Amino acid sequence: MTNDSKSRGTGGGNYRWVGNVTRRPDGVDKVTGRARYGDDMVLPGMLYMRTLRSPHAHAKILSIDTSEAEAMKGVKAVVTHEDVPDHPLSKPPYGPQISDFHDISRNIMAREKVLYDGHAVAAVAATSELIAKQAVRKIKVEYEVLEHVMNPYEAAQPDAPVLHENQFTHGVEPEPKTPSNLFRTVGGERGDLDKGFANSDLVVEREFTSEPVHQGYIEPLACIASTSEDGAIELWTSTQGHFVARALICRLLKLDMSKLRVTASEIGGGFGGKTTIYHEPAAILLSMKTGRPVRSVMTRNEVMRATGPTVGSVCHIKIGAMKDGTLVAGDAEIWYQAGAFKGSPVGRAADTFFSPYNIPNCKTACNDVCVNRPKAAAYRAPGAPLATWAAEAVINEIADKLNIDPIDIRLKNAVKEGDTSLMGTTHGRIGCVEVLEAAKNHPHYKAALSEGQGRGVAIGYWLHGGGLSSASANLLDDGTLTLALGTPDIGGSRSSMRAMAAEELGIDVELVKPAVVDTGALGYNHLTAGSRTTYATGMAVVNATREIIQKLCSLAAKLWDIPVDEVRWDSGQAIPADKHSDKIEPMTLQALARKAPGTVGPIAGHCELNASGPGATFCAQISDVEIDPETGRTIPIRHTVILDAGRAISPDYVEGQMQGGAVQGIGWALNEEYIYSDEGKLLNTGFLDYRMPVASDVPMIDTLIVEVPNPNHPYGVRGVGEPPLVSAPAAVANAVENALGFTMNSLPLSPPKVLEALEATEAPLAAE
Amino acid sequence: MTNDSKSRGTGGGNYRWVGNVTRRPDGVDKVTGRARYGDDMVLPGMLYMRTLRSPHAHAKILSIDTSEAEAMKGVKAVVTHEDVPDHPLSKPPYGPQISDFHDISRNIMAREKVLYDGHAVAAVAATSELIAKQAVRKIKVEYEVLEHVMNPYEAAQPDAPVLHENQFTHGVEPEPKTPSNLFRTVGGERGDLDKGFANSDLVVEREFTSEPVHQGYIEPLACIASTSEDGAIELWTSTQGHFVARALICRLLKLDMSKLRVTASEIGGGFGGKTTIYHEPAAILLSMKTGRPVRSVMTRNEVMRATGPTVGSVCHIKIGAMKDGTLVAGDAEIWYQAGAFKGSPVGRAADTFFSPYNIPNCKTACNDVCVNRPKAAAYRAPGAPLATWAAEAVINEIADKLNIDPIDIRLKNAVKEGDTSLMGTTHGRIGCVEVLEAAKNHPHYKAALSEGQGRGVAIGYWLHGGGLSSASANLLDDGTLTLALGTPDIGGSRSSMRAMAAEELGIDVELVKPAVVDTGALGYNHLTAGSRTTYATGMAVVNATREIIQKLCSLAAKLWDIPVDEVRWDSGQAIPADKHSDKIEPMTLQALARKAPGTVGPIAGHCELNASGPGATFCAQISDVEIDPETGRTIPIRHTVILDAGRAISPDYVEGQMQGGAVQGIGWALNEEYIYSDEGKLLNTGFLDYRMPVASDVPMIDTLIVEVPNPNHPYGVRGVGEPPLVSAPAAVANAVENALGFTMNSLPLSPPKVLEALEATEAPLAAE
Repeated sequence: MTNDSKSRGTGGGNYRWVGNVTRRPDGVDKVTGRARYGDDMVLPGMLYMRTLRSPHAHAKILSIDTSEAEAMKGVKAVVTHEDVPDHPLSKPPYGPQISDFHDISRNIMAREKVLYDGHAVAAVAATSELIAKQAVRKIKVEYEVLEHVMNPYEAAQPDAPVLHENQFTHGVEPEPKTPSNLFRTVGGERGDLDKGFANSDLVVEREFTSEPVHQGYIEPLACIASTSEDGAIELWTSTQGHFVARALICRLLKLDMSKLRVTASEIGGGFGGKTTIYHEPAAILLSMKTGRPVRSVMTRNEVMRATGPTVGSVCHIKIGAMKDGTLVAGDAEIWYQAGAFKGSPVGRAADTFFSPYNIPNCKTACNDVCVNRPKAAAYRAPGAPLATWAAEAVINEIADKLNIDPIDIRLKNAVKEGDTSLMGTTHGRIGCVEVLEAAKNHPHYKAALSEGQGRGVAIGYWLHGGGLSSASANLLDDGTLTLALGTPDIGGSRSSMRAMAAEELGIDVELVKPAVVDTGALGYNHLTAGSRTTYATGMAVVNATREIIQKLCSLAAKLWDIPVDEVRWDSGQAIPADKHSDKIEPMTLQALARKAPGTVGPIAGHCELNASGPGATFCAQISDVEIDPETGRTIPIRHTVILDAGRAISPDYVEGQMQGGAVQGIGWALNEEYIYSDEGKLLNTGFLDYRMPVASDVPMIDTLIVEVPNPNHPYGVRGVGEPPLVSAPAAVANAVENALGFTMNSLPLSPPKVLEALEATEAPLAAE
Repeated sequence: MTNDSKSRGTGGGNYRWVGNVTRRPDGVDKVTGRARYGDDMVLPGMLYMRTLRSPHAHAKILSIDTSEAEAMKGVKAVVTHEDVPDHPLSKPPYGPQISDFHDISRNIMAREKVLYDGHAVAAVAATSELIAKQAVRKIKVEYEVLEHVMNPYEAAQPDAPVLHENQFTHGVEPEPKTPSNLFRTVGGERGDLDKGFANSDLVVEREFTSEPVHQGYIEPLACIASTSEDGAIELWTSTQGHFVARALICRLLKLDMSKLRVTASEIGGGFGGKTTIYHEPAAILLSMKTGRPVRSVMTRNEVMRATGPTVGSVCHIKIGAMKDGTLVAGDAEIWYQAGAFKGSPVGRAADTFFSPYNIPNCKTACNDVCVNRPKAAAYRAPGAPLATWAAEAVINEIADKLNIDPIDIRLKNAVKEGDTSLMGTTHGRIGCVEVLEAAKNHPHYKAALSEGQGRGVAIGYWLHGGGLSSASANLLDDGTLTLALGTPDIGGSRSSMRAMAAEELGIDVELVKPAVVDTGALGYNHLTAGSRTTYATGMAVVNATREIIQKLCSLAAKLWDIPVDEVRWDSGQAIPADKHSDKIEPMTLQALARKAPGTVGPIAGHCELNASGPGATFCAQISDVEIDPETGRTIPIRHTVILDAGRAISPDYVEGQMQGGAVQGIGWALNEEYIYSDEGKLLNTGFLDYRMPVASDVPMIDTLIVEVPNPNHPYGVRGVGEPPLVSAPAAVANAVENALGFTMNSLPLSPPKVLEALEATEAPLAAE
């Protein structure tokens, strides 16, 4: 368990810790089972919460009778929508994340209607899990079942069953008079589309469909709420953002934010699925009613039925190119399943379709459509993988038809510094070309394929996040450092924060102890999501440690009786200006830390910021697959991810992100899908029937970290959490098409679908 | 549960929250049982720790055989001194609190010898409390019993049994060749003592003895430790200072401080008794050995036998006065029982004897003597009550003999601003005269006494603490505020911090939520002890909230596009300079808080400081007692405490401190004492035999808060936690003497002693 110093990125830089592999701060506790996840917390007198969920995809709630449940011995309280404050319908404009409390209040507890199989209708707190389960069954709900709709394209049509009678399509003129499941269409346009296509030598047009997939985190949602009669509330929950949970819950339940103290448990995966609230408000309301702590742990069935998967889609896309491979026109429209409430990631999709390329004439239109499914949640680069899949499949087909190498066609059109994306982001220094060149030069891309095998490439674009983060660094008497952070550590942020702090201070990384603290102890932090954490929280950590350095230099100046501007910091020491060097010895951080308590007092650095200037991350993937013609099963046999990390602070975690994203993309491309009955009931509610890839399903995922530093971050960091998923399904799907020799337009490319296609075309497998 | 606005202090000031009574932030959780104390924490897989303790007062450890215990089913580990790192004997100079790890390592686990009944010898971790108890009995220790010594005066003599063969009296010339229990003598001298006494019209000389008394907190010590193979340690403990516990444990066990994260539980009383470490290191070592969390909860028996009581004493004192009551000479020597290890509060005693008075010629000598008792710990104004008792008894006797009113003689000699104490503190603005005058004018002092009753008065001096504190204030989007504090709340510090923050910001006190956070989240905080918290942490809170105000003014200036020096803060609003008032409306804190996230980011204020300039607190008490001549029992019938709080931020809590201190002083004066057998075994190890006052034993304690603001604190705060105990035993003892008509020189003035004295003197009860 020693730290090695192998730098794995391509960016160089003379760093001691940044860019090197160090011992994981979260490793031992996770492998020994000591890490405390959501359901490891217990409190004296705790009650158990269970939730009654809708068996219908769409139904009016006529009545709820909780009396029999409430009369049961051991049942302490029941809550329904009547206990949740109602919120008026929000008016536009909406922000990028639509936080409409009218919708949230109804999603966490159905009010007028149930809108999907699994929709929460009531919750019970009882002295045991068993009693709570039995009590849930005693709640009588009268429903009037309504017609439901599951497909977003169909749901957007005028004759579809309407989920929300008060929802009208937003942003169209004249203002519509009839309600619609189509909430809004977001997109952009530039150039002259008709002229672009007219001037193209080749136009390829295709339709794509896909099914929702779940984030598939291992740890089901779990929380425990404890409320006091004086209004104070404590909440432990498995979340990607406890400060965000605090804000949402307080606004929903109309509470003072300072009264709710939220602790983020260790998190067993999130991938975007733990960025909002589900059962927490009911647990809090039950605790308020009973005066006792209330714990809720969802089952996998509940997680699958009632928490956000990512969107399924219907997509129409058309791209035009010149013979030399120059892309001249692109037109894409996509219909996203928002689920039961508006807010699918249409804005991100609009920006993602064509963003790795300079296409002079293009247009995207992305439709946010409500359907009778659980409300879609974020999933690793929300909106991007499906848009990327569509565009990259068509570009591969164009390359194929023009007989151009698929990487060459991408390089020819690749975006560079100074280019502007369709949705208006003008890029600073970016690594699209570097990533494509690294892919082209990778041994994998040159390796031969055998018969029955296919290779796909794809590149993905992601504009990672910045925003609000806070950090406090406290230097202790013995020269060690505690780091208080507020962004839950999902992908190794404690490691990278520790590395940056140690690098700045010039001390051993093992002396720095990072911790994710509760909402009562630190300033606001936005989610660990949007690939923002190492960028924004990292910037806060660097600023906080630099404040410490400033204070240490001041202390040294005071001790030496020289002006502070004659002291500089280098490699863990305060060093006097040269003119003092014959009289004054440098002082180490340890020596200064020992002096602090008796002089200036404790030394700390703090930073709260709104991190601006995040940049674009590009990620290319090369996928080789082999298809079993007997079963239609696709076997991934080699997979390489090439990512511009800007600067990989903790390269082993970056590689983990790259590998994890690729594996999730393989699952998405080949196997994962929600299967609903005709009645709109989810049929595959567990990991036996909802088949995610396991270790034996995938090859070792090879990784190559490219480093084109982001000029806006002190170490050049770009967000790396989401990009590895953006291009993964596309690369795999392209490999399947390459192996089959014909196109496939529906994800997942599951064995039955492939077998059916093979039988229909009677074409031989294509490789060579 | 509404907030009233009755200001109870005499200091005036136009404050909305400071000085007013508000709803207690800790009240509901404490009365509902929801507050989590030391033993309310549980962790999965937790083991139970029990400690084997010495049955001897003084013995050599010949061998410890743990094999039989370790072989028991359910026993997971045993630790002895062999598991505790040894530390070489420290060399002088020592600080005011002697933290000698040579001693601490031996006190938490006996090494060469056991030094008192109850001294920890080994500890066991087992899967149940019962198995742990049984296992402790299976540990075989061979002792060679040695002669023991309990009285500090006797222990200081050359022929006494020696506890530490390597301890020599410090600071005497020539350096002694033989070891001694007398570790050092601390004191001061000024003027010409012989001349002073020679010139006195009256000299009174007396001897006093007292027994140790325990802090008597309701909650026994409890902790739970969880360690990880990667060196990270978490500890929950009932403590007056989790940052101090961290520092002590890390230095003792040779750990990096950043690796140990300590959370202070809610605390069920401390009174100085929870300012050090006892069972925590063994719990940590057992957790390291087993890889599992280990919990230790002491029994009351263990608390009484093995945790620090305050010192017992032998004292010799002589004071000379002129006929008019002018005090001209004072000479005091005291022998304090340090217990088994050096470090009794001799420095504080040296400063306390004569400090309310200007006595031109005086001397104090305070002897720190080891005896075979548990190591003395701090107890509410350590060192002061016994010194004060001696001095105040003699001054009362002088007043009596000179026929001067006892308050008048004190007023005549009272210290004022600019005077210097014997140990060198030159006073700023102080309230000694104001307190005495308030006492003299109090109706209690003028009330008639009945037959058999007596009245005593006394004044006490205490130099309260400053030092290291840290605080973070975070302003939330909805205009509420979280306050992160690091000093455990024993006497209401959350309330006073909240009041000061709300006062500064100009918002409702209920919008501010204070929390005591763990050591991973904040800068260093010294103990909640030394009456320092409202002073030092309060100053940190005020500074932190002022940083927020500064940032809000900057934000307003930015929004208004005017220079920041043209914005001022008043009553919760940013207000533009008059020249802008026709164009710009003031903005409330709430409005600015809402604007912050989208502009400058989260708004926080932080302060880490070394608070200098604490001041002196004076506290006078008037005690009326009635003595039952049949039983010798003293019944307190009226008691008034008059205290200069500087500024009472939360007057109800200040009154609570005054009442609590008085009640503890009544117990100390009348009942409490450690009773040892001839073999040195403690006989009264529970609250049935160790009799502390209960509600029915004491009258309602009347309080009067005087406010002479401390110029060094933004609100004028003086420390109030300890001063109410300083003069309490003296006032009660003086009342007993007044009732009896003769002197009594030994605390407690328990019924048998009083009865014996009554029978010996055959004097009638004295009143009237």
